[in-house]
Amino acid sequence: MLEDLKQEVYEANMKLPKLDLVTFTWGNVSAIDRDKGLFVIKPSGVPYEDMKPSDMVVVDLDGKVVEGDLNPSSDTPTHTYLYNHFKTIGGIVHTHSPWAVSFAAAKMDIPATSTTHADTFYGDVPCAPALTQKQIEEAYELNTGKVIVDEFNRRGIDPDAVPAVLVSQHGPFAWGPTADKAVYNAKVLEVSAEISYHTLQLTRDETHVPQYLLDKHYYRKHGKNAYYGQNNAKSKSHAEHE
Amino acid sequence: MLEDLKQEVYEANMKLPKLDLVTFTWGNVSAIDRDKGLFVIKPSGVPYEDMKPSDMVVVDLDGKVVEGDLNPSSDTPTHTYLYNHFKTIGGIVHTHSPWAVSFAAAKMDIPATSTTHADTFYGDVPCAPALTQKQIEEAYELNTGKVIVDEFNRRGIDPDAVPAVLVSQHGPFAWGPTADKAVYNAKVLEVSAEISYHTLQLTRDETHVPQYLLDKHYYRKHGKNAYYGQNNAKSKSHAEHE
Amino acid sequence: MLEDLKQEVYEANMKLPKLDLVTFTWGNVSAIDRDKGLFVIKPSGVPYEDMKPSDMVVVDLDGKVVEGDLNPSSDTPTHTYLYNHFKTIGGIVHTHSPWAVSFAAAKMDIPATSTTHADTFYGDVPCAPALTQKQIEEAYELNTGKVIVDEFNRRGIDPDAVPAVLVSQHGPFAWGPTADKAVYNAKVLEVSAEISYHTLQLTRDETHVPQYLLDKHYYRKHGKNAYYGQNNAKSKSHAEHE
Amino acid sequence: MLEDLKQEVYEANMKLPKLDLVTFTWGNVSAIDRDKGLFVIKPSGVPYEDMKPSDMVVVDLDGKVVEGDLNPSSDTPTHTYLYNHFKTIGGIVHTHSPWAVSFAAAKMDIPATSTTHADTFYGDVPCAPALTQKQIEEAYELNTGKVIVDEFNRRGIDPDAVPAVLVSQHGPFAWGPTADKAVYNAKVLEVSAEISYHTLQLTRDETHVPQYLLDKHYYRKHGKNAYYGQNNAKSKSHAEHE
Repeated sequence: MLEDLKQEVYEANMKLPKLDLVTFTWGNVSAIDRDKGLFVIKPSGVPYEDMKPSDMVVVDLDGKVVEGDLNPSSDTPTHTYLYNHFKTIGGIVHTHSPWAVSFAAAKMDIPATSTTHADTFYGDVPCAPALTQKQIEEAYELNTGKVIVDEFNRRGIDPDAVPAVLVSQHGPFAWGPTADKAVYNAKVLEVSAEISYHTLQLTRDETHVPQYLLDKHYYRKHGKNAYYGQNNAKSKSHAEHE
Repeated sequence: MLEDLKQEVYEANMKLPKLDLVTFTWGNVSAIDRDKGLFVIKPSGVPYEDMKPSDMVVVDLDGKVVEGDLNPSSDTPTHTYLYNHFKTIGGIVHTHSPWAVSFAAAKMDIPATSTTHADTFYGDVPCAPALTQKQIEEAYELNTGKVIVDEFNRRGIDPDAVPAVLVSQHGPFAWGPTADKAVYNAKVLEVSAEISYHTLQLTRDETHVPQYLLDKHYYRKHGKNAYYGQNNAKSKSHAEHE
Repeated sequence: MLEDLKQEVYEANMKLPKLDLVTFTWGNVSAIDRDKGLFVIKPSGVPYEDMKPSDMVVVDLDGKVVEGDLNPSSDTPTHTYLYNHFKTIGGIVHTHSPWAVSFAAAKMDIPATSTTHADTFYGDVPCAPALTQKQIEEAYELNTGKVIVDEFNRRGIDPDAVPAVLVSQHGPFAWGPTADKAVYNAKVLEVSAEISYHTLQLTRDETHVPQYLLDKHYYRKHGKNAYYGQNNAKSKSHAEHE
Repeated sequence: MLEDLKQEVYEANMKLPKLDLVTFTWGNVSAIDRDKGLFVIKPSGVPYEDMKPSDMVVVDLDGKVVEGDLNPSSDTPTHTYLYNHFKTIGGIVHTHSPWAVSFAAAKMDIPATSTTHADTFYGDVPCAPALTQKQIEEAYELNTGKVIVDEFNRRGIDPDAVPAVLVSQHGPFAWGPTADKAVYNAKVLEVSAEISYHTLQLTRDETHVPQYLLDKHYYRKHGKNAYYGQNNAKSKSHAEHE
């Protein structure tokens, strides 16, 4: 069942340690088959070196396991909620990458201070508020999805234009059209957090890039006037700057 | 004698350089057989690349060498003291990992500012006071154990719930049910120190996570209502977040 | 056509990930044949692991592709402008290396605070102003070259003496007599940015090195009285300090 | 001539990139045969991957090359001066390791804030003043040695007890009884600088360790009452903490 998607999700999970985004097993990736209404997610707490494509768990959009011998990631309700409310996304990744977590712990957005950020994120990456005691005790992982979606709605942010978020006191989630692209976005998020941290220590001047620079970098790569890359398969994956 | 435990302690020691927790030989791990009242510890000052399982030294709870050709770690009296006073722990690790040492040099607790910390440590990791001149001159390594135990008693902290400490001007100790789990905790401590350092530079706002978030993350993985992982061997080791 | 130069440019591009100067495909290197008035540049958005010397694109000094099946780097107009105005340079590199980008985002020069900097850069590395809305919308990449050249002219800096620049809100460009030397300079820039960042956090005292130290280190390695290295092929490449 | 010493110096040089202490060729190590009054030093500007033991250059205590086809390191006069004035040292290393250079650029001592530092350095590592214009123009490298020796004399520091120094605006030098031990000390210096940097950012409280802690850690490993290690060959090299 969904063997190709399992392979894809497996490979995307295995990229996390390779890209220095996880310590131990602290990350998970999923991807969805929108036609079938099913998504594939990493099992809970299995070390990367032991994981196989067949360990991936298939879950439906009510969060129920449809296939798989192992428990799915304990963050599965967060993934379910995001797939149900961000209708265009195809893959989700959660990590505890340390620069992004530092901003989440400080309850700060990651400001768009350079083109490295703007090539992927059309504006600041928002930091959603911490869950309340009630939200935590009632349904922790599901409400983690809820505070994310609520924050995007409240600020009027398009999740395709800003494909990542921080949750206060917790850490980053990123997404994209595929699992692979979600992992790519999670790495850009970490690099952008590292750069913005240092920028904020260097100066107290305003460092947000202006709207017209955001526009330029976003539309250089998105939409009908995009002119970056080869417009063919060779450059499709991970070809953001050069 | 205790060949399995020697192998376990050897392997846990060899993880320290692999996890970037030590420079040169600056770390040591031990583990105890509570039934026999004996523990196994790394020899003093032997480079990791030359170390063999049979080099491990067997020590009793009076700190006397029972078996082994090499001198045990010079920190052996600290380990002895901790095993005698923290009755439930099975393994201990000491390193000079740089983020944790930076907090120890600043004589500051590592604050619980995110779930990365809270998944392993049920509250701040305390920084025990520096040893007095008398404590240093009388019995330095033994008194290092003593200031740790005294600080946990003074603050009423359960060493199973917060399995690590800093000693002011010196560095971190971590422990756990096994040598392997102690090393895991030492790594989480280092990552948590790195994150909290950056958090403290980003903001002067209060960043401690609330008690109910500590409760949620601790009891998600500990005690009878835990629901994280696979509840089987495959996920037992190092499966803290996903 | 220009097979040797393609090989050289290919190898210089492949050094970028090896020297930790790029994430994903975020860098590009070119080199020029001044006699023919043609330069060779990396194709746009091709992952390093898939790239071959024959993928390199040949471009003339009007920025027109002369040979190659792939699109050249989208930053080609910047390279073209720099080759046309900095007549002595033979190779150019652009990266998003994070320490240099942090200074660019803060719109700050990288100050010459130590001999590590002064051995390669005869003074501060300037940060050129951010492009205006008009400059971005009219001809973004070409105007990136223009703000660089204008800033060197305005300050009266010799591009051979200070072979690198930051562009505000964007990142670093470096150059040199060859592609290989340009990559070398890009790495020194990153190390120098890292050092100066930490220096600026340690103290608010003046930390610029004096003019006579700049003179000493520059003329120790450049011009007729240079006495560094072996004056033979073995030490020619990358022999800046010892 | 001095083939064993050449091998030793070669191996010590090759450790610099392995220990992350150098970028490109930016480091040099030498060692002296006190009986013959000759020292062996790395050639100038030769990449590590091309270097052979036979490339090492033999120099006398007047700084004259006695054997070798290549130019010795351009820092040779600094080494000569140090061997002539610090009579007990057997090996010297110079690097541009970035944490140490950051303190040198800030013209600050590296404070002894933890036992990681105190196990190797019996007090702060001093930052010698920047060379004057006259000192630079007359005899730059020789006067670099002179400001080091003068600073140790002025402060009354024993170079065996504090085997390293920073030179303002330049960087670190370390030494020891052998080339290998000098490289060890250079690595401890870098780690200690990293820790002290972070300590100084965490707190404005006094963080120097007290004299009695310096005494304890120094005499635990030095002199007739030392009790660290195995007192045999196996633990002789690099066995400072455990």
